[in-house]
Amino acid sequence: MSSTQEANLTELPVKRPREEAVEENGGISVTMEESNGVAAAECISTIIPGWFSEISPMWPGEAHSLKVEKILFQGKSDYQNVIVFQSSTYGKVLVLDGVIQLTERDECAYHEMITHLPLCSIPNPKKVLVIGGGDGGVLREVSRHSSVEKIDICEIDKMVVDVSKQFFPKVAVGYDDPRVTLHIGDGVAFLKAVPDPAVIVDSSDPIGPAQELFEKPFFQSVAKSLRPGGVVCTQAESIWLHMHIIEDIVANCRQIFKGSVNYAWTSVPTYPSGVIGFMLCSTEGPAVDFKHPINPIDADCSHVNTKRPLKFYNSEMHSAAFCLPLFAKRVIESKAN
Amino acid sequence: MSSTQEANLTELPVKRPREEAVEENGGISVTMEESNGVAAAECISTIIPGWFSEISPMWPGEAHSLKVEKILFQGKSDYQNVIVFQSSTYGKVLVLDGVIQLTERDECAYHEMITHLPLCSIPNPKKVLVIGGGDGGVLREVSRHSSVEKIDICEIDKMVVDVSKQFFPKVAVGYDDPRVTLHIGDGVAFLKAVPDPAVIVDSSDPIGPAQELFEKPFFQSVAKSLRPGGVVCTQAESIWLHMHIIEDIVANCRQIFKGSVNYAWTSVPTYPSGVIGFMLCSTEGPAVDFKHPINPIDADCSHVNTKRPLKFYNSEMHSAAFCLPLFAKRVIESKAN
Repeated sequence: MSSTQEANLTELPVKRPREEAVEENGGISVTMEESNGVAAAECISTIIPGWFSEISPMWPGEAHSLKVEKILFQGKSDYQNVIVFQSSTYGKVLVLDGVIQLTERDECAYHEMITHLPLCSIPNPKKVLVIGGGDGGVLREVSRHSSVEKIDICEIDKMVVDVSKQFFPKVAVGYDDPRVTLHIGDGVAFLKAVPDPAVIVDSSDPIGPAQELFEKPFFQSVAKSLRPGGVVCTQAESIWLHMHIIEDIVANCRQIFKGSVNYAWTSVPTYPSGVIGFMLCSTEGPAVDFKHPINPIDADCSHVNTKRPLKFYNSEMHSAAFCLPLFAKRVIESKAN
Repeated sequence: MSSTQEANLTELPVKRPREEAVEENGGISVTMEESNGVAAAECISTIIPGWFSEISPMWPGEAHSLKVEKILFQGKSDYQNVIVFQSSTYGKVLVLDGVIQLTERDECAYHEMITHLPLCSIPNPKKVLVIGGGDGGVLREVSRHSSVEKIDICEIDKMVVDVSKQFFPKVAVGYDDPRVTLHIGDGVAFLKAVPDPAVIVDSSDPIGPAQELFEKPFFQSVAKSLRPGGVVCTQAESIWLHMHIIEDIVANCRQIFKGSVNYAWTSVPTYPSGVIGFMLCSTEGPAVDFKHPINPIDADCSHVNTKRPLKFYNSEMHSAAFCLPLFAKRVIESKAN
């Protein structure tokens, strides 16, 4: 093989974004269509024998690739393209619209942090609403909290739930908890029907079906639905890549939420730039100090309902997640005025 | 272009590791040779028009890629292959033996943390020895400390120094400090000649010229060279990828250093798994509490000698860096016995 061919390959996803799906010699290349009014055509998901590469206008100029052992599932739901593959070193991988949502190797970091950051910050959480999170990983983590009596999950895309139950049993195990009720539908509409939960928003990026979950009206609906001292935790992108998005979210949340508004972040190797952030907010009422957890979960006993012990979260990591590098702290704290 | 060609490209670096360097149609593919007795042939550095991909047996099954605007420098020193390219979104990038050493966009995280974690943990550091770190980034950070009277740097590869001065003036600015003396040579030998410094080991990975810097005799030499209460900080890989290496380093250091032995980590997007760790040790003598810095540097005034303010480090980030996820904490603390 000549280097000419090499050159063509790497430039393909950027230069020929609308190329039709091809399947030839075992190679598979999937091209996005318009979804939710967003031009998603440039979000290319390319699976070729050997490697999956994640390329998106959300992180221009870089791509993370995983070696593929076997493609296990490919489908197109009403909302997005869904792919599951066995990687050679990260276990099974779930990909939506060309973007890695979880790998078996590092999903612990994301699911444990997005769940326990809010739930360990309030005394005795009773009701929890999960928006998105169809894979069940957040449910698995919520179920470690014995005070919780009711867990509702509202996922817009049933294919995500089905695929997770089939291919990711250690993640979808969250659905086995009898406190869980699954609703397939729009999280924004559902929010209005369920009063006073703690809310966890486990969404994909703001390009695609999750776009609405990053906008002001959504945060206003969440704020209305929370009881006094209620909390919400939303997936809030990367400080290295998306400070402009984070800046807007923080500004909106400071207007809308009259309690605490804090940004936290953690390490997830297979997410772009290797980190993901969380926006944590509380309403007026009993004060919530997100940085100092008051409702610890016991690492040794917390696996009773979930079949595996915690891997990532502990109280130290909880507090550390709110410590921000100078460049991010300057921007986020400037929004406090 | 057919998908057959795509397939060939992505498999190339793994399946044909010893292919000769080719330059054709603007494409460049560089193949390692044996270096330092280590079979480095599998560490392939492939630069093709459009993208640079980082593939190594140190992180099998995954690769991070950056879009290349222009290749600025390619050379082969006595120790390693050296490449500098202009990336489309991470600024200029320095690559040694196929592995990204720094990018202009995120070098702040690595250089600020590896330097200020040790130097902010001791009162009034006077002498500092940097081993490796030929790019000058650690020097730039050390020079923020006004108590420091003498800074020695021992870099084995003069080409790294020259290339940094030519292409990374904001990093190599560290050499402008009149307190700095550059020694080109073996850090291990040099250590024996310079008594009682604080030591910062800014090395590449343990495959290649830096291998010795991860082994027990090196840590023994460092321990001997330190004054009572002296400190060392070494680059110590990723908790997500290299727990086996970290486990060995921690076990060795607990045997050798009679003061504090702590592991810290931070986010660096362009390093594999998005994180890098640091081993921090002190000798017998005045106790050093690495987790609680006693020698803060002022973010606003610290740019006097270095032309830019801090971007990443602050005292909160310092303490947070020692908080470890459960899976890493279990392994690292088990070595305390």
